Amino acid sequence: MSTPERLIEATQELLWERGYVGTSPKAIQQRAGAGQGSMYHHFAGKPDLALAAVTRTAAEMRGTAGQLLDGPGSAYERIEAYLLRERDVMKGCPVGRLTMDPEVIASDALRAPVDETIGWLRGRLAEILQEGLDRGDLTPGLVPGEVAAAVVATVQGGYVLARASGSTAAFDSAVRGLLSLLAPAGKA
Amino acid sequence: MSTPERLIEATQELLWERGYVGTSPKAIQQRAGAGQGSMYHHFAGKPDLALAAVTRTAAEMRGTAGQLLDGPGSAYERIEAYLLRERDVMKGCPVGRLTMDPEVIASDALRAPVDETIGWLRGRLAEILQEGLDRGDLTPGLVPGEVAAAVVATVQGGYVLARASGSTAAFDSAVRGLLSLLAPAGKA
Repeated sequence: MSTPERLIEATQELLWERGYVGTSPKAIQQRAGAGQGSMYHHFAGKPDLALAAVTRTAAEMRGTAGQLLDGPGSAYERIEAYLLRERDVMKGCPVGRLTMDPEVIASDALRAPVDETIGWLRGRLAEILQEGLDRGDLTPGLVPGEVAAAVVATVQGGYVLARASGSTAAFDSAVRGLLSLLAPAGKA
Repeated sequence: MSTPERLIEATQELLWERGYVGTSPKAIQQRAGAGQGSMYHHFAGKPDLALAAVTRTAAEMRGTAGQLLDGPGSAYERIEAYLLRERDVMKGCPVGRLTMDPEVIASDALRAPVDETIGWLRGRLAEILQEGLDRGDLTPGLVPGEVAAAVVATVQGGYVLARASGSTAAFDSAVRGLLSLLAPAGKA
């Protein structure tokens, strides 16, 4: 792997584990096995490297979620597949966790890929919910954009519950709770 | 205000804004207007002071949430009051945000008040949902513990959505989406 690649991957990992504020240029260099001169040869600095890392993480998340949401089945089944997909629950969401980082939120450039990814996910879920409504699969009157926001929030908040309690069971509970509320009559 | 009080309040604020990893002893001293010697006279160190701050923040959150959940009205109305209460949405949850902090999660002592507070909230919501079921106010078959987890997750994840998009509207959408799913038939 090339040095810029190693630097980006190391930054992706460290941002996931420790956030932006908790990630020092030195820690990135150590994890990437790259020197300070090499890092500043390829990237202008930590913000520049972080932007490359966040952009890649966001694209990866979009790929994984998109595959499940574009899969076969009814609206409910596709949302269920998305919610129940295998996750590294205790690590949390590599994109969502960045929202708790004051320096990410203060930077329009760093917040943009986070906002775009979560916005894309909400939009895609809302489309699927609208399809389900159109086919009569879901409770009439449900507002797709609002329920889509609740689905994304349940996942993001499910990580908080799991990390607070030290167990993935809390994430699973939240997801099952939401699915039971969303289930078409007779399927709950 | 006494010096220990000022130190605890400054730490509460900084933990909320920047998390544990992002809060240095020096920043605490500066915000509290206290010297290094004074801080270490009253507290053994950053972990000790953070524990005092987190314990107090947790108690404050429990007080606010408890008041709404113990209020009048049906199960749905009390959960609605809790979800719609005035919040500093863009700041996120001072307790939940700590779960994204690797050093909080790695410390049993610091994680304990976070776990207890979120666990208490889930338990209280589950009791209220059970009351609603017993009175026939909510959809039969709903599992109180799971829906309670979904309610707490929606709030915690709602902050993520709001901070990602830079607007409180995303939080409101998620909460309305969840409430519409929870609403007793005819009330949605």
